[in-house]
Amino acid sequence: MSERIGFVGMGTMGSGMAANLAAAGHQVLVWNRTRAKAEAVQGVEVADDLRQVSAECDVVMICVADTPDVRRVLTGDRGLLEGLRSGSLVVDHSTISPAVTRELADLVAGDGAAWLDAPVSGGSEGAQRGTLSVMVGGDAEQLSRARPYIEAFAATITHVGPVGAGQTAKLVNQILVVVTQLGVSEALLLAEAAGLDLSSTLAAVEGGAGGSWMLSNRGPQMIGRDWRPGFTIDLQQKDLRLVLETAERLQIPLPGTALVHQMYGSLQRRGLGGEGNHGLVKALEAMSELEVGVEEQPGS
Amino acid sequence: MSERIGFVGMGTMGSGMAANLAAAGHQVLVWNRTRAKAEAVQGVEVADDLRQVSAECDVVMICVADTPDVRRVLTGDRGLLEGLRSGSLVVDHSTISPAVTRELADLVAGDGAAWLDAPVSGGSEGAQRGTLSVMVGGDAEQLSRARPYIEAFAATITHVGPVGAGQTAKLVNQILVVVTQLGVSEALLLAEAAGLDLSSTLAAVEGGAGGSWMLSNRGPQMIGRDWRPGFTIDLQQKDLRLVLETAERLQIPLPGTALVHQMYGSLQRRGLGGEGNHGLVKALEAMSELEVGVEEQPGS
Repeated sequence: MSERIGFVGMGTMGSGMAANLAAAGHQVLVWNRTRAKAEAVQGVEVADDLRQVSAECDVVMICVADTPDVRRVLTGDRGLLEGLRSGSLVVDHSTISPAVTRELADLVAGDGAAWLDAPVSGGSEGAQRGTLSVMVGGDAEQLSRARPYIEAFAATITHVGPVGAGQTAKLVNQILVVVTQLGVSEALLLAEAAGLDLSSTLAAVEGGAGGSWMLSNRGPQMIGRDWRPGFTIDLQQKDLRLVLETAERLQIPLPGTALVHQMYGSLQRRGLGGEGNHGLVKALEAMSELEVGVEEQPGS
Repeated sequence: MSERIGFVGMGTMGSGMAANLAAAGHQVLVWNRTRAKAEAVQGVEVADDLRQVSAECDVVMICVADTPDVRRVLTGDRGLLEGLRSGSLVVDHSTISPAVTRELADLVAGDGAAWLDAPVSGGSEGAQRGTLSVMVGGDAEQLSRARPYIEAFAATITHVGPVGAGQTAKLVNQILVVVTQLGVSEALLLAEAAGLDLSSTLAAVEGGAGGSWMLSNRGPQMIGRDWRPGFTIDLQQKDLRLVLETAERLQIPLPGTALVHQMYGSLQRRGLGGEGNHGLVKALEAMSELEVGVEEQPGS
């Protein structure tokens, strides 16, 4: 029998995920700090407070911005913990600290509830289309229970280990994203400075050992100087802070990731934190007074 | 009418390329410093000296190790320049300095000959299978002339600009390769230190925005601690030296590339220059006393 699903957080990610759950025929009860955003989502009911969500739903999904936000929806006044029952399952789709994840999982275990950390990648487009990739940490049986619901918005669901492992895998993903983006930025800057045609250079290299998702998807955007975000620099910095905190705790060196974090910081200082993470190249451009590519004229 | 093709340099790349030219029905006259290596190549004739190659062939292909080697086969005693005729075409498949490329092209232009710089990527496997990617700089008409011959060993041929542009595009490719490899190395080190299962983590992230050729092809090799080279650290360092020289001439910052160059240097010091470029992770491991993955036992 299908369980009633709670969903906390109707941001750009959560609203698409909840709408896909409803479209797949599940009963969905949602909560959002700004109630109007929750009421705009097709096919869902809106709860009056968080306690109602956990009191009425056996599976509660969360998708909020940062570690303190997850802690707040759980432990705050009239929060999820107040309604949570034995046998319930919390599925956290936010990207937050792996260490805090283990702490919060222990907290809900005190009420007899289980925790899956299940951060997603694929952006707001993936949430709307139902094609997200989900990295899951936690008990395999609990994942079997949650899988039919997660499948409503995910194309790939990978179990990577115990509680916290999903968050760590997401951090692994973020390292790959930003250091690959650094390579793309340096490569296009050299091509620009040397006077190469950027589009044919990209075509010449993308199929080989230098190829990447970032090069093929963000490279053309960079060449057109289109800085609209798939994922903003501000959100990227939040995730890199988690990466570097985790690396410090584990005492491992991540010199490339740390370099990118510093470079993004210089762009935030310039007020560019709302632009896409492929704006990294602007930090190199600022050092060289060069610009990669040419902006397309409106209407062309 | 098909022209007779000269080919200079029967190393791991050149021997496969020349064999594919012969297999495609072209008449090929080859030269190599060590004559025995040239005689081992199927279907080709072996020249007595370089002068004979340029005197008897209208199109002369070169594939040697480094910038001084290309200069030497051209300008040395009984070298290519002594036999080169007006209307001849030199196609340099080596990866060498873009600036020296323009100088050598001017030199052969003095004899009425043309130059294409046409560095390749795809490794010795690509040379043998005839699936190389070739980035070409030079005159478009000369490329039309050479294209039927290059097609004997290439799957992709991209014209990227005037003489020197092919070499610069290859440097762009090398930046992408090594900085992406840095991202893969940092990502797997974090995963290892956090106790994740490396193979399922790789599976969880390779289809998303962190995906790359290096992750999908060298990642599994790294997890198995298989350091056999697709491309050695020593050759990578030679190419990075060209990248950083070019960046210095153009006065642009490549902080990620410079970092990787330093890290590879530390591995060369330890005698690991003959291992594959994915051995980069060992420079991070040395700082953390950790090892990514587990070596497969012989026979398992």
